[in-house]
Amino acid sequence: MRRSVADKARKLLLVKTATSSSSSVSQHPSLPLSLSSSSWPQSAIRFLTSLNSPSPSSSSDSMTSSLTLETINPKVLKCEYAVRGEIVTLAQQLQEELKVNPGSHPFDEILYCNIGNPQSLGQQAITFFREVLALCDHPAILDKSETQGIFSADAIERAWQILDQIPGRATGAYSHSQGIKGLRDTIAAGIEARDGFPADPNDIFLTDGASPAVHMMMQLLIRSENDGILCPIPQYPLYSASIALHGGTLVPYYLDEATGWGLEISELKKQLEAAKSKGITVRALVVINPGNPTGQVLAEGNQREIVKFCKEESLVLLADEVYQENIYVPDKQFHSFKKISRTMGYGDNDISLVSFQSVSKGYYGECGKRGGYMEVTGFSPEIREQIYKVASVNLCSNISGQILASLVMSPPKVGDESYESYSAEKDGILSSLARRAMTLEDALNSLEGVTCNRAEGAMYLFPRIHLPLKAIKTAEAEKTAPDAFYCRRLLNATGIVVVPGSGFGQVPGTWHFRCTILPQEDKIPAVVSRLTDFHKGFMDEFRN
Amino acid sequence: MRRSVADKARKLLLVKTATSSSSSVSQHPSLPLSLSSSSWPQSAIRFLTSLNSPSPSSSSDSMTSSLTLETINPKVLKCEYAVRGEIVTLAQQLQEELKVNPGSHPFDEILYCNIGNPQSLGQQAITFFREVLALCDHPAILDKSETQGIFSADAIERAWQILDQIPGRATGAYSHSQGIKGLRDTIAAGIEARDGFPADPNDIFLTDGASPAVHMMMQLLIRSENDGILCPIPQYPLYSASIALHGGTLVPYYLDEATGWGLEISELKKQLEAAKSKGITVRALVVINPGNPTGQVLAEGNQREIVKFCKEESLVLLADEVYQENIYVPDKQFHSFKKISRTMGYGDNDISLVSFQSVSKGYYGECGKRGGYMEVTGFSPEIREQIYKVASVNLCSNISGQILASLVMSPPKVGDESYESYSAEKDGILSSLARRAMTLEDALNSLEGVTCNRAEGAMYLFPRIHLPLKAIKTAEAEKTAPDAFYCRRLLNATGIVVVPGSGFGQVPGTWHFRCTILPQEDKIPAVVSRLTDFHKGFMDEFRN
Repeated sequence: MRRSVADKARKLLLVKTATSSSSSVSQHPSLPLSLSSSSWPQSAIRFLTSLNSPSPSSSSDSMTSSLTLETINPKVLKCEYAVRGEIVTLAQQLQEELKVNPGSHPFDEILYCNIGNPQSLGQQAITFFREVLALCDHPAILDKSETQGIFSADAIERAWQILDQIPGRATGAYSHSQGIKGLRDTIAAGIEARDGFPADPNDIFLTDGASPAVHMMMQLLIRSENDGILCPIPQYPLYSASIALHGGTLVPYYLDEATGWGLEISELKKQLEAAKSKGITVRALVVINPGNPTGQVLAEGNQREIVKFCKEESLVLLADEVYQENIYVPDKQFHSFKKISRTMGYGDNDISLVSFQSVSKGYYGECGKRGGYMEVTGFSPEIREQIYKVASVNLCSNISGQILASLVMSPPKVGDESYESYSAEKDGILSSLARRAMTLEDALNSLEGVTCNRAEGAMYLFPRIHLPLKAIKTAEAEKTAPDAFYCRRLLNATGIVVVPGSGFGQVPGTWHFRCTILPQEDKIPAVVSRLTDFHKGFMDEFRN
Repeated sequence: MRRSVADKARKLLLVKTATSSSSSVSQHPSLPLSLSSSSWPQSAIRFLTSLNSPSPSSSSDSMTSSLTLETINPKVLKCEYAVRGEIVTLAQQLQEELKVNPGSHPFDEILYCNIGNPQSLGQQAITFFREVLALCDHPAILDKSETQGIFSADAIERAWQILDQIPGRATGAYSHSQGIKGLRDTIAAGIEARDGFPADPNDIFLTDGASPAVHMMMQLLIRSENDGILCPIPQYPLYSASIALHGGTLVPYYLDEATGWGLEISELKKQLEAAKSKGITVRALVVINPGNPTGQVLAEGNQREIVKFCKEESLVLLADEVYQENIYVPDKQFHSFKKISRTMGYGDNDISLVSFQSVSKGYYGECGKRGGYMEVTGFSPEIREQIYKVASVNLCSNISGQILASLVMSPPKVGDESYESYSAEKDGILSSLARRAMTLEDALNSLEGVTCNRAEGAMYLFPRIHLPLKAIKTAEAEKTAPDAFYCRRLLNATGIVVVPGSGFGQVPGTWHFRCTILPQEDKIPAVVSRLTDFHKGFMDEFRN
């Protein structure tokens, strides 16, 4: 079904693009006198002027009855999000079948390695964070004696601090559109401590996870399909989806798999020039560091080159830094792009920079809380005001997520009652993730025809699979991408859910899949053996 | 500053509209052979085909340096949201001044009557709801003995039920893109109990408040400025903002102030025909019931006519029903549009209907939790799949908000330990709101030149102010709308923040403001006397 829809979509795009463009030619806004009253809201002025633009192409539509794929916004049809695509739908079916009819498949559970969702695979929440959230949700218990017995003293103290930062201690009220000021102060202080450079709470916009922040920036930057956004390939499909939904053009730059997914400035320049020569105005550069789906961590020197490139080309640098706490190798370290640019002596007048952070990743992995923020620097007050306005239309992000964002940027400190247990929980999770990454990386590299770069950070491995010609032909006969064909076979044989590389983008003719490192450690041996057995069988079946 | 930006915006629109339309003419997508590999993600195919559309108009832009109002998405410039506009910015300034320099203004506090944010004005959260949220945030305490001492037994029981509905009891995991299935079951059961007609959990999409749900539907429905959405005038500016952001056309229909903001089918027909004659394809009808900003509750017969109209004209009915629990008069009752349509014998094949609900309103007023849902009925599986896809791109709404949405649709029942206290809290809030509505309504109607319809429901009054000519002239001399002039004067004199009618739309030449009924009851007398004194003074000053 999904594929048939996608096919229809592609057919439709040609038609629709033509229609909508031709229909918008006859725009000559003018204001009918009868409506030029100053009492008229601007929105009204706008809609009534557009009532004055007859459009033969759409008037035929005006009889269109109920909604069909032919009559919805084609940008929605264009948008794709493989991380929750076809393969996951199949996995959910299999899971249902296993529930109804145990033993109906050669595995007894589905292992979701398709998405960075740690707690869904058994990772435990950080106790201190949850204590504070619970106390802020129900402050009535804060001064009950029983509470001291079941909550740590510093969690109670932190809850009081946070409540005092909220006007009227109203955790159930809409906050300032950018988020509660006191929490933004805490986050700014956390950024300063991380970077060693000042951060301004007024630059912080708290959001329901990082995704809405990315949408907000795309909405601001993209005017038409002639506006381009430079994105890494492979990329996290939020970017391709958001660019499609906002009607822009994704300008790809390729990460070099041979050099551990290296980001070459020469490639950025080449793609920027190619785009310009096609009449594309490139507005921004997306960099994901640590990389998703690729797991590499950028070297400091490389980051400097990127900042310099953005300054020279006047590109907004959109820095996806949600994996800043997920680094697993001693020879790499996270440096925020803001720190790098400030180290280079670049200030607000030199570069427009947006840093995205989320409570969903890191060692905390609080995906369900939908907390996050963007730090917006180097924009004029007028543009800032526009970002504020768009944020205001959605009123504010959820307060628990706001509180959690302040907690991850200001966790317990040495001497706090919770510090010991907090550190033990944090280190336990991060060291386990590092071990899992290495085990899976080694296992993948031991497979025939599979090569996998080092997982330096983030939560993913993105192995390349050299598929036999026979497998490729069989897949194409089944009208599916060879890597999707491989992943579906893997799921049906083992219950392991991974995402085909074609969902992230890859060099034409190469095949990959993205696999998270998140199954709990006691499950890793099973994952490895199931994966290994499947791969052997697959290669034998399709060996040329 | 805001106004100067808006002015620039208006100038820009003409330019930009022309640019973008002309630039999109030369669209002839074609796929370069070198890239036609089946390994290529569709997103990649799309961006590379669009690289093939040279556009002289934008190539000039390609040298554009840093971001300016001239180079951002003009749809963002168009968008306006008065509820958090100019007047609120001024209020925040005054609040700062009062903090720094008490006594610097003729009032000692700012009273925010601009937005439906009950807990910011002192309304207390419903205890049972907060108990359950706290327990779900920190389940570790569920079986501690102290917990029984400070949480009600049914809250503990409900928390266990909810945790058992969440795979792995992982409240920190991303959920299904539509929300946790078990919670959707509870919500569907609540809808059935409310309407007496079946509800399907698969029709429920849980969202971070109602606003993102409205955006999702606008994104689906709007292809270009030739697509129209019928909206009431006056309207809640989320609708005009969302239509502007998605590039559509707001087609206004006027509520009749003389008949208590009556919604006349003849007016709907007239505006629909007017729009069609201009080449506008009207896709949907927005109805807000109970009304915002107008506070009226639709009569059942009127709702039937509306449903019939949508069926006949094949319009999607977008029913904003977030105030369904906020009704203050004995002669009116809430009926969901789904119940009405089913009562008429209309099923999924007869009408496409979306009902929006939120945890921010009602007696609960949990704005900060950002919980809500839309119930989507009468759409084909293919369209449903597109809605699901768009929901998936943002992964899921926040889990606390999801839990709260299930709680408001399934509160404590007779016999539950919390039932008595819950009912007392609920009735206390609703009866107080009813008293406040009536007191403010009477006070407004007692003012010279002010007429105010009955607040039957919702949280607002929308009085009409008959301003003296001299006031209108003075306002126009100051290049501001007369109602905005009045509201600014009111704020500066009393600290009371209300929103000018021009932010919601009104019949040209009439002036209104929206005032919430939310100040706590002990503050109402002060509000009334400050408002009355100000108005007398204002009328005396500008009397002709």
